Amino acid sequence: MTEESTPESADTAGQTIAVLGGTGDQGRGLARRFALAGHTVVIGSRSAERAQKAARELVEGESARIDVRGLDNAAAAAAGDIVIVAVPWDGHRELLEGLVEPLAGKIVVDCVNPLGFDERGPYALEVAEGSAAEQAARILEGSRVTAAFHHVSAVVLLDPGVEQVDLDVLVLGEDRAATDEVRALAGRIPGVRGVFGGRLRNAHQVEALTANLIAVNRRYKTHAGLRITGL
Amino acid sequence: MTEESTPESADTAGQTIAVLGGTGDQGRGLARRFALAGHTVVIGSRSAERAQKAARELVEGESARIDVRGLDNAAAAAAGDIVIVAVPWDGHRELLEGLVEPLAGKIVVDCVNPLGFDERGPYALEVAEGSAAEQAARILEGSRVTAAFHHVSAVVLLDPGVEQVDLDVLVLGEDRAATDEVRALAGRIPGVRGVFGGRLRNAHQVEALTANLIAVNRRYKTHAGLRITGL
Repeated sequence: MTEESTPESADTAGQTIAVLGGTGDQGRGLARRFALAGHTVVIGSRSAERAQKAARELVEGESARIDVRGLDNAAAAAAGDIVIVAVPWDGHRELLEGLVEPLAGKIVVDCVNPLGFDERGPYALEVAEGSAAEQAARILEGSRVTAAFHHVSAVVLLDPGVEQVDLDVLVLGEDRAATDEVRALAGRIPGVRGVFGGRLRNAHQVEALTANLIAVNRRYKTHAGLRITGL
Repeated sequence: MTEESTPESADTAGQTIAVLGGTGDQGRGLARRFALAGHTVVIGSRSAERAQKAARELVEGESARIDVRGLDNAAAAAAGDIVIVAVPWDGHRELLEGLVEPLAGKIVVDCVNPLGFDERGPYALEVAEGSAAEQAARILEGSRVTAAFHHVSAVVLLDPGVEQVDLDVLVLGEDRAATDEVRALAGRIPGVRGVFGGRLRNAHQVEALTANLIAVNRRYKTHAGLRITGL
């Protein structure tokens, strides 16, 4: 492993992590893992009540003490030092257009996969901006938009029996310091390694690859992830 | 590893492998590895002379005896039991339109990555049919078109110091028996595992992901590959 692959200089330890759309499976899974890593985590949802309920259930599900709170998405965006966007693709644009101000200057981590499903399985949707991450960057001009955590299995993240998550997280973005911070954040989940994966214009295929991993899951009855070899 | 991930029933051992565009780095790398695995390999090129020269150089480069011949692309297509398409994207359509007949009924393995390069690095090109593999399937209606070997590093395949190649090969296609055969073929390279990766409509992102792996290579000074976890 090269020095490059462990961004130890980027210290995310004291930061509050907000997860917008944090009541969904992927959002709750990430919230749980970052809370277990010692972060204060704020779950955001359209309804503050639903967010609070999801937060309470996460806290009650752990024997360790974790700090997870629930707020509406705007309040969560304001509260987070790093803000993860884990909403369904359907509501992505609308949500972000309403959060330009609270997200200004912050690291935003888009992990949305624009996928469709039909009788033949999953497939990648076309996105006018190229990808969910590029749409986010277009809307959130004042934020430091990155893309990451596309391939994490919510089932694995939520499974109390899985301590080590066997996964590399590809982190994309234009802002080197921001991608380094998100790589460090990924590395706070035991077993996970954050790997720089290119510029945002190459985010589409990383998002869309989730369709292939779903195909792998169906064929092999598993929860597939990725590792990058050669590092 | 599940039974699914080792398609031992698909026995490719006695088959002749043709590599169209086999004088390029990726083609030569694959030709070398399949020849070392005991296959008769036919390198195809626009010029039979260049193909013969590349074949001769591969044979002379090995201490083991390997069987590699050079032919023009049409003769190579006719000679192969399984035909790998490893030409530059630029010549992809034209080549295949001329090979509809010799490729009829055969397993065709498209491993072409439609990429562009500019001062900011590599990026995925738009393909009207969706992907190189779907373009091949559209042109070669009578062939069993699969997509695979997108992420193999030519440098690694050609390196005599690398015996075990640390890589999973995603194999896509509509024809289960064909993808099983190609998975078995991938498995004949020591260290490599063939993994079913979905339908051809999800080939674009697998091809395009090569741009991200190039970004990884540049950042980390390596030859990156993929492994699928959870299998």
